[in-house]
Amino acid sequence: MKSAILTVGTEILFGQIVNTNAAFLSRNLNDLGIDVMYHNTVGDNPQRLRKVLENLLEECDLVITTGGLGPTQDDLTKEIVAEITGDRLMLHQPSMDRIEEYFRLSGREMTENNIRQAYVPEKSRVLPNDRGSAPGFVSERDDGKAVMCLPGPPWEMEHMFTKYGIMYLKEKSDEAICYRFVRTAGIGESILETRLIDLIDGQVDPTIATYCSEGESYLRITSKRKSEDEATEAVEEMVDEVYRRVGDYIYCTGEKTLPEVLGDVMKQKGLTLASAESCTGGLFADSHISVPGSSGYFVTGIVTYSEESKMKYLGVKKETLEKYTAVSSQVAVEMVEGLARETGCDICAAVTGLCGPGKDQHGRDPGLVYTAVKYGGRVMCLENRFRDSGRNLLRKRSAGVMNKMIFDMLREEYPEMFRRSGGDR
Amino acid sequence: MKSAILTVGTEILFGQIVNTNAAFLSRNLNDLGIDVMYHNTVGDNPQRLRKVLENLLEECDLVITTGGLGPTQDDLTKEIVAEITGDRLMLHQPSMDRIEEYFRLSGREMTENNIRQAYVPEKSRVLPNDRGSAPGFVSERDDGKAVMCLPGPPWEMEHMFTKYGIMYLKEKSDEAICYRFVRTAGIGESILETRLIDLIDGQVDPTIATYCSEGESYLRITSKRKSEDEATEAVEEMVDEVYRRVGDYIYCTGEKTLPEVLGDVMKQKGLTLASAESCTGGLFADSHISVPGSSGYFVTGIVTYSEESKMKYLGVKKETLEKYTAVSSQVAVEMVEGLARETGCDICAAVTGLCGPGKDQHGRDPGLVYTAVKYGGRVMCLENRFRDSGRNLLRKRSAGVMNKMIFDMLREEYPEMFRRSGGDR
Repeated sequence: MKSAILTVGTEILFGQIVNTNAAFLSRNLNDLGIDVMYHNTVGDNPQRLRKVLENLLEECDLVITTGGLGPTQDDLTKEIVAEITGDRLMLHQPSMDRIEEYFRLSGREMTENNIRQAYVPEKSRVLPNDRGSAPGFVSERDDGKAVMCLPGPPWEMEHMFTKYGIMYLKEKSDEAICYRFVRTAGIGESILETRLIDLIDGQVDPTIATYCSEGESYLRITSKRKSEDEATEAVEEMVDEVYRRVGDYIYCTGEKTLPEVLGDVMKQKGLTLASAESCTGGLFADSHISVPGSSGYFVTGIVTYSEESKMKYLGVKKETLEKYTAVSSQVAVEMVEGLARETGCDICAAVTGLCGPGKDQHGRDPGLVYTAVKYGGRVMCLENRFRDSGRNLLRKRSAGVMNKMIFDMLREEYPEMFRRSGGDR
Repeated sequence: MKSAILTVGTEILFGQIVNTNAAFLSRNLNDLGIDVMYHNTVGDNPQRLRKVLENLLEECDLVITTGGLGPTQDDLTKEIVAEITGDRLMLHQPSMDRIEEYFRLSGREMTENNIRQAYVPEKSRVLPNDRGSAPGFVSERDDGKAVMCLPGPPWEMEHMFTKYGIMYLKEKSDEAICYRFVRTAGIGESILETRLIDLIDGQVDPTIATYCSEGESYLRITSKRKSEDEATEAVEEMVDEVYRRVGDYIYCTGEKTLPEVLGDVMKQKGLTLASAESCTGGLFADSHISVPGSSGYFVTGIVTYSEESKMKYLGVKKETLEKYTAVSSQVAVEMVEGLARETGCDICAAVTGLCGPGKDQHGRDPGLVYTAVKYGGRVMCLENRFRDSGRNLLRKRSAGVMNKMIFDMLREEYPEMFRRSGGDR
């Protein structure tokens, strides 16, 4: 099936908002085996919207729109989709009830515009909005081509698509697709590819694709078969083979991020985590605290951005700072030792580095970052020399390396936790 | 001038990358007074690329492409742009020299593909790439319509567009445009609009537009005139009028973010800042440390995610935690008091809240967040009840409120620092 994603909204064309909806839907459509041919964005203009939608439907079997369903935008998207699919707008009573309930509970007054949100094309299949007022829907043309209309706010759209939209798409498909991500840490994309090249080149089904995102390499293994069981079996066999070849670098087969996987292991093993950050300024702590349930292992994070706070909170010595500068392996090690002493946590991670912009007072380039981890009486310190890719990307990469080092140390201690055992790992 | 942005890259259609380039270029084009009519994304497919580009040039005077200039993508974009503009690819010697220099310095071997990167359409104007190997360029068709080709990596593209692309666009324009952002904190978009409604409705030139992004409202005041002086004068007069009406809420007229402006004030007044974060887990510290130069005032951030660390590092009392729970105004106040005691910093900010997912063990909904700031012997504590918009958006909003509270307290102490004085504030 060929598809396109059409975003409706002047705020996107003004650049006020980054179009994360298109990326979210693309990932999901690709996961379902649906090819995405185009992304398009048009403003709140009926002529251009109609023209673009008609053009896309010439080449594609499915167009997913986001936005233009809100109360202030005159139901632009709905009117035009109804016209194109030869339908007319009708009041959808369950949606009306839902909207009335929503306003009753929030104590706000309902306006004429809100009532118009309950209108959808008569022959369409309604997709309920559990997180907002505007319902979505799918309209099919007589030739079988379909337009799925979703709301613009990501919080509403992602839930509606995941809960109701995917179901529609699965019903439409006559093939079963199964895929699995294999996520790695500490191995580059090209080495990964070299180790699997015969599997990648000889791919018919399952197929293997390698990806690289923010310094992390991962694989996607996909099979399309007549039945879901067949597809799943083919994928699992290939995952086994990949484990035999690069198992040491795999931290998960599934959707989890590295901090999530590390968190699972720490919780199961009753380990606690603390961090001391200089240049990353809280990003490492954030990578864990953004995960629900991280209170089960993440105890304390200290952002020691100044030399004074490195001395005060971590006991870094003045002489060390003077002799080696704040950005040095010596200081990174003293930071992590001090953090362990101070917090008593099982795993302690520290970082100090130059993230720019510009050289430091010693003429060193941005990208020089020292990361240190202490665990089980052992201290590991790494000197990283990243290519200067801007202050904030350098800071993200540095936090990523800290997590990779924890991964290495935990895997050495608990290899069984990272072994292939079906399910999510 | 009408324009469109065309992104070339299969990785965008796979959803592996969010298209931030389109948002960056849209903001800049709008700032230059150039209307953006469409965003389009196509994969690395010559037929579709050609078709989309030709369609866009029918309606638009300018198409900016990003991506497809890399060594592995077979110069797809360049070949097609040369064809469409009736030109042919030629070796551009200065770009060749630059690429050779780049490889010589990095010690890597240059391949045939890298040489092909130095080819550009013969009649085009080259845009040098100071941050990578592939040059960009602008090609004009005989009818005056233009295609500007930029590389895909944002770090390269943004620099090339800002340093070389904008210059070309300004030369092409016969109007002078001047605009200024007026950024506010602590006032909602609708109240802002009400206070300025006669200026907004009666707008011919300058125009005023209100925007809202992640809980912050701001204005854009724009004038298009024959000369730059005229346009600037018209904008400045309007900014004066806006100051007279809502000056209390304005933190800057320009491009700076709230943490940047607060940082400027703290540095000038010799004030220091420390933070104690629970639910935000480092995001507040990050909002300051992501700004170059923040080491001049940001001293220490503590992420006290567990009850133990709240007691240990901030001296929060066990009885307070037991009686009021960790998410309470009492605990927020004890956190900020303890932080001030412990760090001796002039401004201390603390936060504790429920960010979900799901209710807490006391049945309270996500979105209940207590923020506290201590400054000059005064403690301010706020109870926020945000609408549940997901864990990570709630955490961002909470960090935003902490900065707003600091803004309020600093403005009260130093009103002259926030007064209209031309330039950037």
